[in-house]
Amino acid sequence: MPNNFALGNETLWSRRQLLKLGLVGAGVAGAGVLWQNLSAGSKTLVRVPPISTNTPSDAITPMKVLRDFDYGTVKKENGRTVREFRLTAGTSVIQLNTAVSYNIWDLNGRIPGPTLRAKQGERVRVLFLNKAGHSHSLHFHGIHTSEMDGIRPVSNGSVAIYEFDAEPYGVHLYHCHIEPVTRHISKGLYGMFIIDPPKPRPMADEIVLVMGGYDVNEDKRNEYYAFNGLPNYYMDNPIRIYQNQLVRLYVLNLIEYESAVTFHLHANFFDVYRYGMSLAASEKTDVITMGIAERHILEFAFRYPGKYMFHPHQDWIAEEGCMGQFDVISEKDNQNIPKSS
Amino acid sequence: MPNNFALGNETLWSRRQLLKLGLVGAGVAGAGVLWQNLSAGSKTLVRVPPISTNTPSDAITPMKVLRDFDYGTVKKENGRTVREFRLTAGTSVIQLNTAVSYNIWDLNGRIPGPTLRAKQGERVRVLFLNKAGHSHSLHFHGIHTSEMDGIRPVSNGSVAIYEFDAEPYGVHLYHCHIEPVTRHISKGLYGMFIIDPPKPRPMADEIVLVMGGYDVNEDKRNEYYAFNGLPNYYMDNPIRIYQNQLVRLYVLNLIEYESAVTFHLHANFFDVYRYGMSLAASEKTDVITMGIAERHILEFAFRYPGKYMFHPHQDWIAEEGCMGQFDVISEKDNQNIPKSS
Amino acid sequence: MPNNFALGNETLWSRRQLLKLGLVGAGVAGAGVLWQNLSAGSKTLVRVPPISTNTPSDAITPMKVLRDFDYGTVKKENGRTVREFRLTAGTSVIQLNTAVSYNIWDLNGRIPGPTLRAKQGERVRVLFLNKAGHSHSLHFHGIHTSEMDGIRPVSNGSVAIYEFDAEPYGVHLYHCHIEPVTRHISKGLYGMFIIDPPKPRPMADEIVLVMGGYDVNEDKRNEYYAFNGLPNYYMDNPIRIYQNQLVRLYVLNLIEYESAVTFHLHANFFDVYRYGMSLAASEKTDVITMGIAERHILEFAFRYPGKYMFHPHQDWIAEEGCMGQFDVISEKDNQNIPKSS
Repeated sequence: MPNNFALGNETLWSRRQLLKLGLVGAGVAGAGVLWQNLSAGSKTLVRVPPISTNTPSDAITPMKVLRDFDYGTVKKENGRTVREFRLTAGTSVIQLNTAVSYNIWDLNGRIPGPTLRAKQGERVRVLFLNKAGHSHSLHFHGIHTSEMDGIRPVSNGSVAIYEFDAEPYGVHLYHCHIEPVTRHISKGLYGMFIIDPPKPRPMADEIVLVMGGYDVNEDKRNEYYAFNGLPNYYMDNPIRIYQNQLVRLYVLNLIEYESAVTFHLHANFFDVYRYGMSLAASEKTDVITMGIAERHILEFAFRYPGKYMFHPHQDWIAEEGCMGQFDVISEKDNQNIPKSS
Repeated sequence: MPNNFALGNETLWSRRQLLKLGLVGAGVAGAGVLWQNLSAGSKTLVRVPPISTNTPSDAITPMKVLRDFDYGTVKKENGRTVREFRLTAGTSVIQLNTAVSYNIWDLNGRIPGPTLRAKQGERVRVLFLNKAGHSHSLHFHGIHTSEMDGIRPVSNGSVAIYEFDAEPYGVHLYHCHIEPVTRHISKGLYGMFIIDPPKPRPMADEIVLVMGGYDVNEDKRNEYYAFNGLPNYYMDNPIRIYQNQLVRLYVLNLIEYESAVTFHLHANFFDVYRYGMSLAASEKTDVITMGIAERHILEFAFRYPGKYMFHPHQDWIAEEGCMGQFDVISEKDNQNIPKSS
Repeated sequence: MPNNFALGNETLWSRRQLLKLGLVGAGVAGAGVLWQNLSAGSKTLVRVPPISTNTPSDAITPMKVLRDFDYGTVKKENGRTVREFRLTAGTSVIQLNTAVSYNIWDLNGRIPGPTLRAKQGERVRVLFLNKAGHSHSLHFHGIHTSEMDGIRPVSNGSVAIYEFDAEPYGVHLYHCHIEPVTRHISKGLYGMFIIDPPKPRPMADEIVLVMGGYDVNEDKRNEYYAFNGLPNYYMDNPIRIYQNQLVRLYVLNLIEYESAVTFHLHANFFDVYRYGMSLAASEKTDVITMGIAERHILEFAFRYPGKYMFHPHQDWIAEEGCMGQFDVISEKDNQNIPKSS
């Protein structure tokens, strides 16, 4: 998990903006803490295969989204750890395929937005700058006061600060809550928000998959579907994982206009940690049904090398873009990487 | 829970009707038993905020439905407790909004029908009088003989008696089972049927939320959605609850034409007691997916005062009326009410 | 469970075909093992009522599908048990009702295909012969190598062999995985694949119910629905079961174009063994929501004789054919059958 350390998104915010918010200080520039490696007390390494793929030039870079966690910046305030995230809503044009381009809203130039990650018990502060030319907001799933619920519009050019305790641990989400919410979500204003438990989960190759849909002709049905923003991307660019190494999928369903979707993994079964809100698996299966905004941790390891598909078992959804594959790399191709130090 | 004691619906049935059915006797007039307060062996009070709202004048009074439980009337027959309910199907016109009125069928002048409530092990007797101008029936979810399954039509003006043991405890339902069932349900002939466990659940502010839809133009899609019958009612008239007091939601999904809906609570998480058929929570979440006729107990308390929305996370359903909010009243506005006696 | 012993489908394959595949040997003709009766170490009998019904003449014979398990043929290879199944894809015309006939693909002349059944730890070999005039494949849900995943087309007239270990125990499935998969499934190329746990489940009247839909006018919506292939069949021909005897339903949802369906049993509750992948029930209910390819074991016994419906609680789906009933036969009509030997 070498690249999930984030120093913050300083470049996205000018010093002047931060000064106005009173947020420039020693703490802001402080280093984030990659607790999973530091605090696990484990010397086991998780190996992530090198990524070699053609990265699309626009706002959607699914291969980067995959294992990219935004840990924000950390500071101490009155003896308490405060983790600060900065999210800027903007606009982009993406190519859904060679023929179809689509105007979206993005967060920090991404769709889905950054996968924010905090640890249970910390204080979370989210600085939201709206540059998307329309009123938006960020509604976090979690426990917070009514003022921090993110249902009030933040006008274009304005900033809002959402602050709350990171609790309880689980796989949560955030999204714009301006009506029509369906449209604001499906046009890109959403992301995953992971709160880690006090005692970290076992080391694993951690991967984020967010399912979304695109209603490009505004007929209240989706014409395209995607994992992490881009239709069919992981079919053309399989996700490389290592044989017999634990994979921890963080899966979120945000496909609008469908009552529910399933997530199916080929040739294997996974343990389900419902909503990531338990440390014990509740069931094992290879098909899980998820309503909108449902999200779970799914854990598995592949015993045999090769390529294995994953997709909703609603095949008409899969075939319109919500389909991908894992490329399981043989252990023997991986001999020179130490299993544990 | 001061107002959930029901002496029965005597006014809905004439003495002459009851005489014909042989149901007039000492037992019929006997007092219902509010076992939750009597048998809990607890002196803790559950406080329910005063309700002050404009009650619509027609058959839909969502604020009344909220905490209204019909405990029927109790009598002893051969040493056994028999709990008797009376349900009369009728017709009403409701206002879905200022522009749209809609002809519905109701039960005891309500939509949804009364929330019937019995205790596991009792004998339940339901006297059903059909005055709705069309054949109907009452099909109960529960264990009963084939004769009591409520799939046979009861013609207009006729009476049927359904009798069975109240078992097992859980959140069940009843509805008309005359074809097309989808239409008979969506036009109003449904209600919740709670069987309490032998040892009562902990004291809580108990609230009923039934999700329904209206297909007013008969195109086999709903144009309006509602909690407890009336679109958007609880948005305009938030449900007042007290800070830090346990709320027990009884939630039932009867939205036809949608494969499933989710129920999402803002700014909090709830414990799920699936189908109310367990005394142990199976999971914690803030989004639960429910197929048609699925129903659960959801428990939570709000830590902070303020207003918090609840709705399916299918936002197009929420925005067509299936949306409401809790108004969490600060404890300090509630100081003069004793927490326990 | 007297009739679930299958000697294999010898008649479907010529000796010449098998010779070409190198599969003719002493083992092939060896007897299948009905482990459930042999290894249970129990003398309890499960009684199955005699079936007396008009069997349709075409590929759909739902009453036969009900309790028909294909145990394949067993041989030993290098000391290991290999269980061999033979599936031939063909074409048939079925009558959905008196007015509507429909061209389907079938497996071994059936829709759904045979319910294959193996025991955890065995080696499974599936010989697939495609005679359906179009490229097809068999994709098994389970653990296997990439080569055995069944996503590669098998051209008309060709044979494919799928081989893998039977693990883990559960209620799985297989289906054609050629695009458009939705169409290949809904036209009939699917079946259930049960892997029994090492220690058999308790004796029960075991019944298979597969839910499917038919999009006869290709508008991407189903016009007809069915249990085990034929709309309304079990309404006209109720499934006879005995009072107070444990029934074990193996239920699989393969209704395309619906996000999810529920399965509702009248007048009773069932224990849910999710995906059949646990020996402990996770919940009790009478309505379970299932996404596409979801499948579970549902166990119950009826206390009272009579007829009881089962159907999705989406009544428009039920009323278009996905509806049936159990006919619970009184114990006293069954006195001359020994309960246990």
